[in-house]
Amino acid sequence: MNEDAIVDWLRKQTGKAAAQSSGRSRLRLGIGDDCAIVQPRPSEDLCFTTDQLIEGVHFERSLGPAKIGQRVLARNLSDLAAMGAEPIFCLVNVAVPRDTPSSFLKSFYGGLMKLASETGAELAGGDMAQSDTMHFDVTACGTVPRGKALRREGARPGDRIYVSGPLGKPWTRPIVPRLALGKKLRGRATACIDISDGISRDLYRLCLSSAVAAELESIPMVPGAVVDRALHGGEDYELLFTLPPNVRPPGGCMAVGRIVAGKPGSVRYDGRPLKPLGYDHFYGK
Amino acid sequence: MNEDAIVDWLRKQTGKAAAQSSGRSRLRLGIGDDCAIVQPRPSEDLCFTTDQLIEGVHFERSLGPAKIGQRVLARNLSDLAAMGAEPIFCLVNVAVPRDTPSSFLKSFYGGLMKLASETGAELAGGDMAQSDTMHFDVTACGTVPRGKALRREGARPGDRIYVSGPLGKPWTRPIVPRLALGKKLRGRATACIDISDGISRDLYRLCLSSAVAAELESIPMVPGAVVDRALHGGEDYELLFTLPPNVRPPGGCMAVGRIVAGKPGSVRYDGRPLKPLGYDHFYGK
Repeated sequence: MNEDAIVDWLRKQTGKAAAQSSGRSRLRLGIGDDCAIVQPRPSEDLCFTTDQLIEGVHFERSLGPAKIGQRVLARNLSDLAAMGAEPIFCLVNVAVPRDTPSSFLKSFYGGLMKLASETGAELAGGDMAQSDTMHFDVTACGTVPRGKALRREGARPGDRIYVSGPLGKPWTRPIVPRLALGKKLRGRATACIDISDGISRDLYRLCLSSAVAAELESIPMVPGAVVDRALHGGEDYELLFTLPPNVRPPGGCMAVGRIVAGKPGSVRYDGRPLKPLGYDHFYGK
Repeated sequence: MNEDAIVDWLRKQTGKAAAQSSGRSRLRLGIGDDCAIVQPRPSEDLCFTTDQLIEGVHFERSLGPAKIGQRVLARNLSDLAAMGAEPIFCLVNVAVPRDTPSSFLKSFYGGLMKLASETGAELAGGDMAQSDTMHFDVTACGTVPRGKALRREGARPGDRIYVSGPLGKPWTRPIVPRLALGKKLRGRATACIDISDGISRDLYRLCLSSAVAAELESIPMVPGAVVDRALHGGEDYELLFTLPPNVRPPGGCMAVGRIVAGKPGSVRYDGRPLKPLGYDHFYGK
């Protein structure tokens, strides 16, 4: 199976998906030309995020192709959720060893396209190449009503801090991007970020962007999780957001602390300074 | 230098570039949040392309970081040129070994941002990770007036085929994306593609999309090029396009043949069938 044959197979798959979609597609041209063509609607902003999944760094091949495909898209959709955006399309780059069977690629794309069709993120194009280790890149685009995207920078002293679910999950479970919650938080949350590198680092980032400090009071954890992993472990993909004290959180969200005045980015937990030890993409832990 | 420090450095660089730009920016939020935010204008379509540059496959580290940065963006801009689109932003993913000096990264981004600022493709965001071999991914976005994007599929029997410059160039010279030409071809060219995988393969693709055949009559070559490389070599990044017989080509373009009725994708050169031998991204030559 060569590149043109895989592109042709993909074009047929996405054609079927498009035929089944509800007419809300903004895609005017998908796979098969030099570019995809997108027709945005008036009065909407577009949100873009991009992410990479590298064998031996972010995953092992033993995870299986369908789960790898799901995962690489889900990480991007989690970023869209953190902006309150609704997915409209994605672009996927694949680099795999030359001897990779076409069944592996079909299963990878199958896993990815299942999540894509569930969330509206139509597969619009991408690139294929060979490399010694597997390396996948996804760029995803979502829409929000103009000016309504959630940002990291609006948290104010007195705001309460929430997470969308317990932390410290094992990294092998599928990521569930919190898209419905992100949409609900539009116009309510003062700041939002997704927890991809550990709450210690992501709360630090939110506070730095908002020029505020924070007091963490409790860390909801999944059964069996250890505190260190819940604080500093990556890959949780829950939303971390702030609400003014008089605003009730959506169902299922848990209060974890409050925003306070102080040195921008400074976070305290249990009365002590909490360092942003979470995942650094160059140096690891 | 850790990831947050590099992101911070990049944010300052792109801030300076944005301050110097002409106010045509569609970027409402750049580097530093979960997503970039783009505000498209009414009555324009957006064109998207994505591409990867892998050490040992597409480049050697000895090319130097600034040239690598220029190259990975230029390949994407060539795809935008083939659609007649004007660049508005790009997203850049970087995967490099952990011990890569920050001077290498700054020089890489420097080369990329120089071309970005020359062409309007503002750096809007991206991701960083570590990997054993260097791997760069760029997604680029450009705009065209609604419905005016150049496509591969409109070539008709009788059309003349042109290239924007001589072929068979050494792959180490910098890529010059044909953006001004692409814009000129809007409303004139019946089909267009950029020659990234060799004219034999890219003309085959254009003909297949248009459901026509072609007769190649001549191959303009740079001095010292060999015919085999000019026909089947990749990395030329000239535009290959078709015009109705009564339409004059823009200056500097060269006629190479004509579109004929026949088996879709069938190309003849010098009286013989020409196989699409150009670069296949899984199997190489």
